[in-house]
Amino acid sequence: MKQQKPYVIGLDLGGTNSVFGLVDRKGEIKATTSIKTQGYDLAEDYVEACVEALQPIVEQAGGIDHIQAMGIGAPNANYYNGTVEQTPNIQWAHDRVVPLAKLFSDKVGIPVALTNDANAAAIGEMTYGVARGMKNFIMLTLGTGVGSGIVVNGQLVYGSDGFAGELGHVVMQREGGRLCGCGRTGCLETYCSATGVARTAREFLATRQEPSLLRALDAEKITSLDVSLAAAKGDLLAKEIYEFTGRMLGEACADFATFCSPEAFIFFGGMVKAGDLLMEPLRRSYDEHVMPIFRNKARFLVSSLDGASAAVLGASAVGWEV
Amino acid sequence: MKQQKPYVIGLDLGGTNSVFGLVDRKGEIKATTSIKTQGYDLAEDYVEACVEALQPIVEQAGGIDHIQAMGIGAPNANYYNGTVEQTPNIQWAHDRVVPLAKLFSDKVGIPVALTNDANAAAIGEMTYGVARGMKNFIMLTLGTGVGSGIVVNGQLVYGSDGFAGELGHVVMQREGGRLCGCGRTGCLETYCSATGVARTAREFLATRQEPSLLRALDAEKITSLDVSLAAAKGDLLAKEIYEFTGRMLGEACADFATFCSPEAFIFFGGMVKAGDLLMEPLRRSYDEHVMPIFRNKARFLVSSLDGASAAVLGASAVGWEV
Repeated sequence: MKQQKPYVIGLDLGGTNSVFGLVDRKGEIKATTSIKTQGYDLAEDYVEACVEALQPIVEQAGGIDHIQAMGIGAPNANYYNGTVEQTPNIQWAHDRVVPLAKLFSDKVGIPVALTNDANAAAIGEMTYGVARGMKNFIMLTLGTGVGSGIVVNGQLVYGSDGFAGELGHVVMQREGGRLCGCGRTGCLETYCSATGVARTAREFLATRQEPSLLRALDAEKITSLDVSLAAAKGDLLAKEIYEFTGRMLGEACADFATFCSPEAFIFFGGMVKAGDLLMEPLRRSYDEHVMPIFRNKARFLVSSLDGASAAVLGASAVGWEV
Repeated sequence: MKQQKPYVIGLDLGGTNSVFGLVDRKGEIKATTSIKTQGYDLAEDYVEACVEALQPIVEQAGGIDHIQAMGIGAPNANYYNGTVEQTPNIQWAHDRVVPLAKLFSDKVGIPVALTNDANAAAIGEMTYGVARGMKNFIMLTLGTGVGSGIVVNGQLVYGSDGFAGELGHVVMQREGGRLCGCGRTGCLETYCSATGVARTAREFLATRQEPSLLRALDAEKITSLDVSLAAAKGDLLAKEIYEFTGRMLGEACADFATFCSPEAFIFFGGMVKAGDLLMEPLRRSYDEHVMPIFRNKARFLVSSLDGASAAVLGASAVGWEV
């Protein structure tokens, strides 16, 4: 058995900030630091700046010998290759394949693994959160987009190329669907992400006559939070927007069940704050649409990791898997 | 390492016949026998009859000590529990949960595992067929229904309850879909199975005016084979029926790719005989609909196992996994 050291480093690599955490086996964050992700032409310079920022954290751990590994959660990350590939929002990675795991590992001297944000969230939930002990579950992150991390037989599903688990891009509307960032139309994330809810709001406001608190807002600037606040005040149209969203997500989950019959669906991300406004129609629609053999089996859970630090925790958990 | 014996027994348990094969490591069937599946009120009596029929096979193997295990492919089989559950077409299992693996194992004295037909086909393909060496693929069996066996990280996906891999019941038509045997509407198998092709033929004949060789047939008795024979003679409506079928299957596979990014989709079953009539629109539709990140990655293959013995081989392969 390999020697287990007390800490891992987690890096939540976002388009704006890169947040580091020193994390112990219980999932407690012992120290954090961060730098801006942008402002570097070369990945090497970005890594150099990261390593410098990490020094105090490494010292706090009692030196690099006390750190098992580093895990990174990043957009367009490939677990198999340890690369970040053609990431539109990141200056030093938008037009190339960056061997980020190797760059870090060479500089820091510990093993480094990386995966995308949603997979990191799933591993985080399995390591520290509500999925502890689960062998089969689906994590759905409902934010600007819809991300997913799928666990089968206790292992993350990376597929043949490292990019598996893109359930936000299952097609829910085959005719006349909404245009998606992936270039196709009708994808789940164009309806059931935070931006999807805002699109539904604009669509409902344009095609319907009912009065609504939302009509007082600039339609182009409406957010999913505006919709849930209006619904909380009893606004019927706002409630209907979440009903529409939850129902579609329930139908999607019913399809996902045919694939891997998960023990649970776990939801994470900004949209989850809508609570029962989203979860109630979601569960109802799932029960109605799921194949009889899978009925009343899967649980619907919300992430138990603290929202602010969940991404760092998820990334750190990838480190324990190296 | 556990001792490896030279043979396994495979049992393809169908609604009419139960076919046994003695199979070696290369996938060669050394002996076969069969009995009728029906005519027994109790599963115990069925197993008794099977064991009797197996005697010559066991002797040919050189005794039970030369047989590693027995694998069974059966409808409504649960791998985890070793049970066959509420199987409508089988007299001794239609109203109960039958612990079939244990019944056989107690009588025969070797380990017994069972799984459903499509999973057995996937394991068979991985052990003896075109999926040798593959770690991530999806097997789709296109027969009376659409079955599936999914392999992720080199392991069959059984899910939390043993029933995962029901891709024939992903909903492809959310409004006004065809009624499915599972009690819901719009499932993939109502369109892309052999019976689905026959339904499409009846629908096209009823709603369209074009001349077709199929009009000479009794619409209620049309089969997918009739349609492919007509297409082979240049019948345009018949070709369009397969175009419709292949296109929908391609769209479904594009969705499946988001889940596990398989190295290959492998097709098996009676429908595969239609050849390019089905496969050409399938591939074209897949390329058109799949998420850009997965484009040009998955291969589309046809099972390499001999159709007549493939089910027995698949079942036998389950035996090597025990």
